[in-house]
Amino acid sequence: MANKKQRIAVMCALLAKNPNKLYSLNYFQEMLGAAKSSLSEDAAVIKQVFVEAGIGRVETVAGVHGGIRYVPQIPENARVLLLKELTEKMADTSRILPGGYMYIADLFCTPYYVDGMAQVMAEWFMDKKADFIVTVETKGIPLAMSVARILNLPLAIARRESKLTDGSVFSINYLSGSSRRLQTMSLSKRMIKEGAKALVIDDFIAGGGTIKAICDMLSEFDIEVVGTGAAIVNKYPQKKRITGYKAIFELEELSETKIEISAY
Amino acid sequence: MANKKQRIAVMCALLAKNPNKLYSLNYFQEMLGAAKSSLSEDAAVIKQVFVEAGIGRVETVAGVHGGIRYVPQIPENARVLLLKELTEKMADTSRILPGGYMYIADLFCTPYYVDGMAQVMAEWFMDKKADFIVTVETKGIPLAMSVARILNLPLAIARRESKLTDGSVFSINYLSGSSRRLQTMSLSKRMIKEGAKALVIDDFIAGGGTIKAICDMLSEFDIEVVGTGAAIVNKYPQKKRITGYKAIFELEELSETKIEISAY
Repeated sequence: MANKKQRIAVMCALLAKNPNKLYSLNYFQEMLGAAKSSLSEDAAVIKQVFVEAGIGRVETVAGVHGGIRYVPQIPENARVLLLKELTEKMADTSRILPGGYMYIADLFCTPYYVDGMAQVMAEWFMDKKADFIVTVETKGIPLAMSVARILNLPLAIARRESKLTDGSVFSINYLSGSSRRLQTMSLSKRMIKEGAKALVIDDFIAGGGTIKAICDMLSEFDIEVVGTGAAIVNKYPQKKRITGYKAIFELEELSETKIEISAY
Repeated sequence: MANKKQRIAVMCALLAKNPNKLYSLNYFQEMLGAAKSSLSEDAAVIKQVFVEAGIGRVETVAGVHGGIRYVPQIPENARVLLLKELTEKMADTSRILPGGYMYIADLFCTPYYVDGMAQVMAEWFMDKKADFIVTVETKGIPLAMSVARILNLPLAIARRESKLTDGSVFSINYLSGSSRRLQTMSLSKRMIKEGAKALVIDDFIAGGGTIKAICDMLSEFDIEVVGTGAAIVNKYPQKKRITGYKAIFELEELSETKIEISAY
């Protein structure tokens, strides 16, 4: 049987590892061999401490199928520092590629940055009661998966080319906003449920064509898009093909000698 | 200033959220306003508790750039339950697709399963001192990213088709083991450093052609592959094009009416 400090340590670790997962007190009771009344007291300590430290809230869900879950939050000062660091990294001119492109794939594959951006985005949509997350391959997948992890939701990945292992797919052809090239996107039918609520997450929005295509495709399944978020939005074209999206960064200028990017 | 229970709660949460990230005692000192001697005592409590609960170890790194970090571990009984649950899910005949394929994309996009499989895989390679993780798009990306997250390493994603936003890429053509189709794979040069150590992570190994191609490509950069892991390996062909890989599950039979899969 664990003492109070030990119980608090284990509960905190498990809650923090699995955000938004509901843990019943029975689960902790079995694991830690403590009375429910003690565990409730521990939960109260944890609740108060997390809020004071600004790292999120612990919610209690009443009833037979109830328990506690951790809704993470990034502390204000940590968010400011993260966005400053990312802005500086992104504005580094060594990222400029021939043809006026910008190399940022590394940032979207580094767990610390991915989780940080995902946390910021997850907070926008925490209360939207989405059933799943949707993204398009490839670069945005780690970010979308991290948002999915924080919100404890499944992810559906739309592919440019459908695979045999997807089973039946639903496809849409569309014009990509930046290159005006005809593109195809497919989503496995097994990935989605009619009538569900989706969050669309991507790394970058240029014209908004890809996200518009996702939304169009989802609406055919009677799926409501309850939020759209991207890490970076390009300032131009100013008239996007979608509205109501949220972004962490705005890319204001990208030339062969300069990158101007700011956090919202 | 936080009391002992509060300090333990916050330290546990941060350590658990960011596995293998080194936190200096200075960091906690500033955050929690406690003396280093108290924090060292707290760390000792946490160390002992985590080991007793079977959820990993807390390591102390001495010196000016030292601190503590959390090396997570899945408790034995949790691992057994997870693999049992996944084996049952994978063996569900409703996953059988026309042409003898198997739909498993959902499991590789559900945070709970992805993190669980990644944890099992991360433990195999915890001490290999890898510098980064490599995977090939698309389905294995969430899994590879989760391993990267647990080991606190960057991920490099090889793509089937290189993009302008990758900058200069290194490409290789190879024959995929299953379809004997000529495939291309590209890796952004910026993603990799000569002389580094890599872990190769993928969702599925059939003939091993794709992973062999990755290893061949990496060896051109003088990169040593210190480990290769997949979630599932197909029993056939029994002679793979690679050796020394590890897998969680073996797919023994897949016909139009039956899936036989077992956890190692």
